[in-house]
Amino acid sequence: MHSIDLNADLGEGLGPWLMGDDEALLEVVSSANVATGFHAGDPSIMRRTCRQAAQRGVAIGAHVAYRDLHGFGRRAMDIAPEELAADVLYQVSALEGIARAEGAEVAYCKPHGALYNTIARDEGQAQATAEALAAFRPGLRVLGLPATPWQAAAEAAGLRFVAEAFADRAYTPEGLLVSRQQPGSVLHDVELITARCVAMATGQPVADVEGGQITLSPGSICVHGDTPGAVEIARSVRGALEENGITVEPFSSPASAAGTAS
Amino acid sequence: MHSIDLNADLGEGLGPWLMGDDEALLEVVSSANVATGFHAGDPSIMRRTCRQAAQRGVAIGAHVAYRDLHGFGRRAMDIAPEELAADVLYQVSALEGIARAEGAEVAYCKPHGALYNTIARDEGQAQATAEALAAFRPGLRVLGLPATPWQAAAEAAGLRFVAEAFADRAYTPEGLLVSRQQPGSVLHDVELITARCVAMATGQPVADVEGGQITLSPGSICVHGDTPGAVEIARSVRGALEENGITVEPFSSPASAAGTAS
Amino acid sequence: MHSIDLNADLGEGLGPWLMGDDEALLEVVSSANVATGFHAGDPSIMRRTCRQAAQRGVAIGAHVAYRDLHGFGRRAMDIAPEELAADVLYQVSALEGIARAEGAEVAYCKPHGALYNTIARDEGQAQATAEALAAFRPGLRVLGLPATPWQAAAEAAGLRFVAEAFADRAYTPEGLLVSRQQPGSVLHDVELITARCVAMATGQPVADVEGGQITLSPGSICVHGDTPGAVEIARSVRGALEENGITVEPFSSPASAAGTAS
Amino acid sequence: MHSIDLNADLGEGLGPWLMGDDEALLEVVSSANVATGFHAGDPSIMRRTCRQAAQRGVAIGAHVAYRDLHGFGRRAMDIAPEELAADVLYQVSALEGIARAEGAEVAYCKPHGALYNTIARDEGQAQATAEALAAFRPGLRVLGLPATPWQAAAEAAGLRFVAEAFADRAYTPEGLLVSRQQPGSVLHDVELITARCVAMATGQPVADVEGGQITLSPGSICVHGDTPGAVEIARSVRGALEENGITVEPFSSPASAAGTAS
Repeated sequence: MHSIDLNADLGEGLGPWLMGDDEALLEVVSSANVATGFHAGDPSIMRRTCRQAAQRGVAIGAHVAYRDLHGFGRRAMDIAPEELAADVLYQVSALEGIARAEGAEVAYCKPHGALYNTIARDEGQAQATAEALAAFRPGLRVLGLPATPWQAAAEAAGLRFVAEAFADRAYTPEGLLVSRQQPGSVLHDVELITARCVAMATGQPVADVEGGQITLSPGSICVHGDTPGAVEIARSVRGALEENGITVEPFSSPASAAGTAS
Repeated sequence: MHSIDLNADLGEGLGPWLMGDDEALLEVVSSANVATGFHAGDPSIMRRTCRQAAQRGVAIGAHVAYRDLHGFGRRAMDIAPEELAADVLYQVSALEGIARAEGAEVAYCKPHGALYNTIARDEGQAQATAEALAAFRPGLRVLGLPATPWQAAAEAAGLRFVAEAFADRAYTPEGLLVSRQQPGSVLHDVELITARCVAMATGQPVADVEGGQITLSPGSICVHGDTPGAVEIARSVRGALEENGITVEPFSSPASAAGTAS
Repeated sequence: MHSIDLNADLGEGLGPWLMGDDEALLEVVSSANVATGFHAGDPSIMRRTCRQAAQRGVAIGAHVAYRDLHGFGRRAMDIAPEELAADVLYQVSALEGIARAEGAEVAYCKPHGALYNTIARDEGQAQATAEALAAFRPGLRVLGLPATPWQAAAEAAGLRFVAEAFADRAYTPEGLLVSRQQPGSVLHDVELITARCVAMATGQPVADVEGGQITLSPGSICVHGDTPGAVEIARSVRGALEENGITVEPFSSPASAAGTAS
Repeated sequence: MHSIDLNADLGEGLGPWLMGDDEALLEVVSSANVATGFHAGDPSIMRRTCRQAAQRGVAIGAHVAYRDLHGFGRRAMDIAPEELAADVLYQVSALEGIARAEGAEVAYCKPHGALYNTIARDEGQAQATAEALAAFRPGLRVLGLPATPWQAAAEAAGLRFVAEAFADRAYTPEGLLVSRQQPGSVLHDVELITARCVAMATGQPVADVEGGQITLSPGSICVHGDTPGAVEIARSVRGALEENGITVEPFSSPASAAGTAS
């Protein structure tokens, strides 16, 4: 009996601007990373996204980010750890109140974009992010790259770290993501991606970028939905998982412990 | 045995900019209206202000506002009620999380600036603000001008309305604030202001702008602290209240029910 | 020999977000209202839009707005005239520098959204906007609704007012726009819209909303492009104008004086 | 006959917030680095500062920065060069239009804060900044640290580089600023600072941090004004320069070529 979580970024519009096909993705994923207003998402979009997720039983995660609307939170920012902690606490708390007003709650946090990448290598920012989330709720689940300062800081702060894998990315033999600058770093073949996700969810190895084999045991797999093709891939992955008897459900569900570090 | 609440606006800096003498005011007031990031206040300032307020037993209120840093929330904005509700919910929730991280909580909400004035006459925005706060927490205490659409909307939404009076403002015979455009609308004499506050806190009448008498029974009196003179006035008011045996304490305290509408 | 200007809103993306089909519209219009960063448009988008417009000989106009990204400049804001003037001067100047770097210049200004509507009835904001644009460049051409405080203020400030008509909007017998709240205010029939534009451009009357006839003599007709259907309408209008021997060219061209008030 | 330029950061308020004593500094300096809205300064403040500078014959410089109001432009940001170029062009152009409306013009550009430091070591951002300024106006004067990628990029782009020295900072034997993390990096003694400025302005050596001698030949000396003590220092420097027969005038004046690299 296997289960796996599928997560995707949702609610990434701003004011009059839309991004991605949230309606379609909400039928596919079990966890929604909801933008919290610093890189995307405004309070109205956040509230609508929480409502839609709650209606479908999709878990709500705080997609916290650097304060950078113009750069969509993708630009690394040399922010003091104390300020970063306050920014993270502000965002996750704002989403919590909105989620509660819609009958749900923040089930986890997944840092976004440049913050996601920075805390995978910068201890100061990793610890600040972890401190803020532990202050928000002891034992909160957090997503991220395993074997990084982020995992270490999260666990040291008493958070429950959940390793994440990416459906459409190539991995090195060491389990790291192949840089987007490298050819072949992003996978596009629907069947290949789908097969890899089934393997990941059942503890089977997948091919690494050098032709070897690597076993990832993610607690959650990230799919995308900001292009028509991406939605199609996400649907294919979900379908194949279910056909193989794998339950797609939030990693915060009691029955889903695979890949959860604590 | 009388008691009264004194409130003031705090945490109104932004990034490198400061405003007002928060340290001095926190020694005077019993309730701190903490800016929640839309007109002033950033997460770091919010956290520091909550910490300082919590250390002194000063109640924390959400000073929610229109999204308008450049105008300090003083410019009326024709925002759709649904968007306003989401903006208010976002702000009060963000402050709640920060306050909790500092061992406190949001005890009340006082809308700021142009929003304060707009909901005193605009039913749509008043109801949106009330709806958001009731969704945040049923029965939350809210400050405002009595006998306005804001009081009506707040009570209809199940919130606990607390009438506010201003230490340094003149009133019409009907109990309305004299417009700032009128001469004599703002009082500057320390002794006069102090005497009026003592009267207000004990249910005695004060002079209105036309020479008559008016009895205000506020649950909270607003003092200011953004000029050196203002801090001096606030200290004088506090001192005189205590000399007259009036306890200065948060209106949300069990013993302080004066002026509370529910 | 007739000529007419077609204008449309362009460059209305922000950071990662896009809006409208700028490429398609630039093949249709003779004047591009370029968002200047306060309601939409960031410097990178502004520069790209100016480059594309310059390559096609499309005139560049400053689409200045209230500072309101989240509301897309559609929310009326009670801003002091002096502050509004500075905001307008800032925006038009920023676009001028960017246009010049791309070998073009700001040929005109069209206020956007809520500002467009407010200056059609509020003298203070109309005069502030006009003052700023006259300070930027004496005699600058400006678009707007005729017979309004905006036209009066613009002409008093020495600006050249150009009356604008809307391709897809119904008009009252008095030449005012039928409110969007009213049924029939927005036209959707491609053939009808196209025929009306040809009539407007040649000084012929069109039907008003009450069944009578009204002669608009616009110096520029506004078309939209933020939906696929809108682009199709714009193309139809352009095609019909040319088939009827009407040159589509910027109203700032020497040969195009129709509807220019000065 | 010697002359030197004194520059200071001005117009660094935002909306309701003030910073520094602009009135006092404008009596001391010959060049005003005017914040252009991305790290501080709003259009109203920019316009007032330009007016005040123009009235006193103080040269106006564009103090361009990363888009970061909350961090005051002091946080390094990993922005793509093309986006940075557009951001710089937007800011300097906005200030130019405002300065012209007040009868002046942008005489030079001095990047602010984290941007100032980044272009002193990052070629990509240095070139992007230089490209934008050359597109704004060929041959524009720019301030910065000499012997850096910024000087190289500026000169390669045809800009006129002017070396800047800091009145209150210690230097290494190589002419670099001693890091603020080091003890003794910032000087506080009024007499010492004043004597060093006179030496710098006349081509005499000053003591470096290791006790040797170093000859800086700046085209401009930066003084500060954001504390009462800082204003006093600035006044002392100005007074001593004049007592020693050194004219304080903008480096862009024809007679002032010292330290100008081209």
